[in-house]
Amino acid sequence: MARAVDDVAELVETARSDGPGQARAVARLISLVERDSPQLREVAQALVGHVGRAHVVGLTGSPGVGKSTSTSALVTALRAAGKTVGVLAVDPTSPFSGGALLGDRVRMSEHATDTGVFIRSMASRGHLGGLAAAAPLALRVLDAAGCDVVLVETVGVGQSEVEIAGLADTSLVLLAPGMGDGIQAAKAGILEIGDVFCVNKADRDGATTTRRELRGMLTMTERPDGAWKPPIVLTVATKGEGVDELVAEIERHRVHLDDSGEGRRRRLARARREVEAIALGEVSRRFSHLSGDARLDGLAADVVGGATDPFTAADTLLDRI
Amino acid sequence: MARAVDDVAELVETARSDGPGQARAVARLISLVERDSPQLREVAQALVGHVGRAHVVGLTGSPGVGKSTSTSALVTALRAAGKTVGVLAVDPTSPFSGGALLGDRVRMSEHATDTGVFIRSMASRGHLGGLAAAAPLALRVLDAAGCDVVLVETVGVGQSEVEIAGLADTSLVLLAPGMGDGIQAAKAGILEIGDVFCVNKADRDGATTTRRELRGMLTMTERPDGAWKPPIVLTVATKGEGVDELVAEIERHRVHLDDSGEGRRRRLARARREVEAIALGEVSRRFSHLSGDARLDGLAADVVGGATDPFTAADTLLDRI
Repeated sequence: MARAVDDVAELVETARSDGPGQARAVARLISLVERDSPQLREVAQALVGHVGRAHVVGLTGSPGVGKSTSTSALVTALRAAGKTVGVLAVDPTSPFSGGALLGDRVRMSEHATDTGVFIRSMASRGHLGGLAAAAPLALRVLDAAGCDVVLVETVGVGQSEVEIAGLADTSLVLLAPGMGDGIQAAKAGILEIGDVFCVNKADRDGATTTRRELRGMLTMTERPDGAWKPPIVLTVATKGEGVDELVAEIERHRVHLDDSGEGRRRRLARARREVEAIALGEVSRRFSHLSGDARLDGLAADVVGGATDPFTAADTLLDRI
Repeated sequence: MARAVDDVAELVETARSDGPGQARAVARLISLVERDSPQLREVAQALVGHVGRAHVVGLTGSPGVGKSTSTSALVTALRAAGKTVGVLAVDPTSPFSGGALLGDRVRMSEHATDTGVFIRSMASRGHLGGLAAAAPLALRVLDAAGCDVVLVETVGVGQSEVEIAGLADTSLVLLAPGMGDGIQAAKAGILEIGDVFCVNKADRDGATTTRRELRGMLTMTERPDGAWKPPIVLTVATKGEGVDELVAEIERHRVHLDDSGEGRRRRLARARREVEAIALGEVSRRFSHLSGDARLDGLAADVVGGATDPFTAADTLLDRI
């Protein structure tokens, strides 16, 4: 179905207002961003000057720790504190279908009629720069729409913790009792990225053990003097228990980011990666447009056939663009 | 410590021979590849014409399914069948330390004195093109050294299934009974990448249930007519049970790859990605060398400061190189 080209400037204006149609304008802008539409750049340009206010909180954790429930409980607590909230649920695990797993998005339905909450799922499609390219722009849209806090949650398997951490000002790592193996296995990456840790399902056996083990591991992680010491909060997200404390620790980290300059460092690093990802995506696009895709395929055939090595082939590719 | 520049041609010659020093030459070549050394290209060039024989089998699966044990059992079975075997254990989960988690590599020690087995761990460091750039070259080294089969296994958290699948001719997906949640959560990605499925720990309760559920999900996955139907093998890797059948199914898939042309298609796609990743890595290197790194940082500051959008910044970056 052909549709009229969107008036991006008008959409951004509506998204920034508090009036009717705001939610729809926000949704439409994120769609434009996600679909890699020709208006992608136009959206990015229209948002300049309207962003930089939102606190982006990334939620990561293995399947089964209660990510969706925790996200929903955080939304409730943040709303009660008078904050406007955006939720971006990213699915980095469906590279083949291109569609987001919306399994338990229904749990968020309690917030569906709240005009102070914007909820959006997006698939990252797993390609180079997928999450890297679309998610930061979606965050900008939610930021420009006036969200005080944007929660970014991965849906599906516990992949891409590191990618999500790269998007966030504050990284919240969720754990659950009795998943000791998971902690062991994950510790290489998880311990370094977490700014705030949350042991959810704390009414189950083993919650304090999990906290103690986690604290032990965090103590062994080297940090510079004066660095942020990640707190560990126990919650029962289904009942809202401990969620206010969690919100308080997230807010405490935001203040630390502002005061220490770490917040600005993270935003600069994020922008750096974003600009680079867009530029590399453009280079990749140029590669695949060389003589109708044939050039890269031809070089690949030369490599497989033993006529050349991949480095020499890459040189040839770079010479062509 | 300064060390003499390696004579790469001589190392490749020794790696290809059956004589003493072969294992050491193989290890040295993989080190050169992993460390992004100045001799990386030289290694790639010296391997041209000596590769394309090995059958690359990727092993993926969640933590706790018994990946290391299964790898070791496969090595034993393949050696009994007279095959030379390479093992590449890739750790994509330690982007911060840069060091591979060698936790249970010790289990492989039973093969340490077998000159028909080459075992190597490498960290991918999580950077753009990390695994994409180094692992294919390490595979080439093992291929040139005469390995009939190379097993590629991820260490640590069950990330990067898709990346590993992209490296392999045959993707072996490991599951264990009683991990139904994992199957559910993972099905979006796992079902499509698996060429052979293995339910390990099959002496535990629920193994046949897991097989039945998996078979049900595989049946629902759409495949073209005449396409490969992934078999499901039950094993107890610790006792070697079912491992011969697993080897037979892997071999049957290899024959299918040859007969159907799918093998060549996969190798071409792999070479295509490899060449592109190297070229993009080179572009990225050029970005970061612009005026001593300052240029990209300056653009990032402009984006954060609201002076420009990331697309315009990316255009500027591309204009500079």
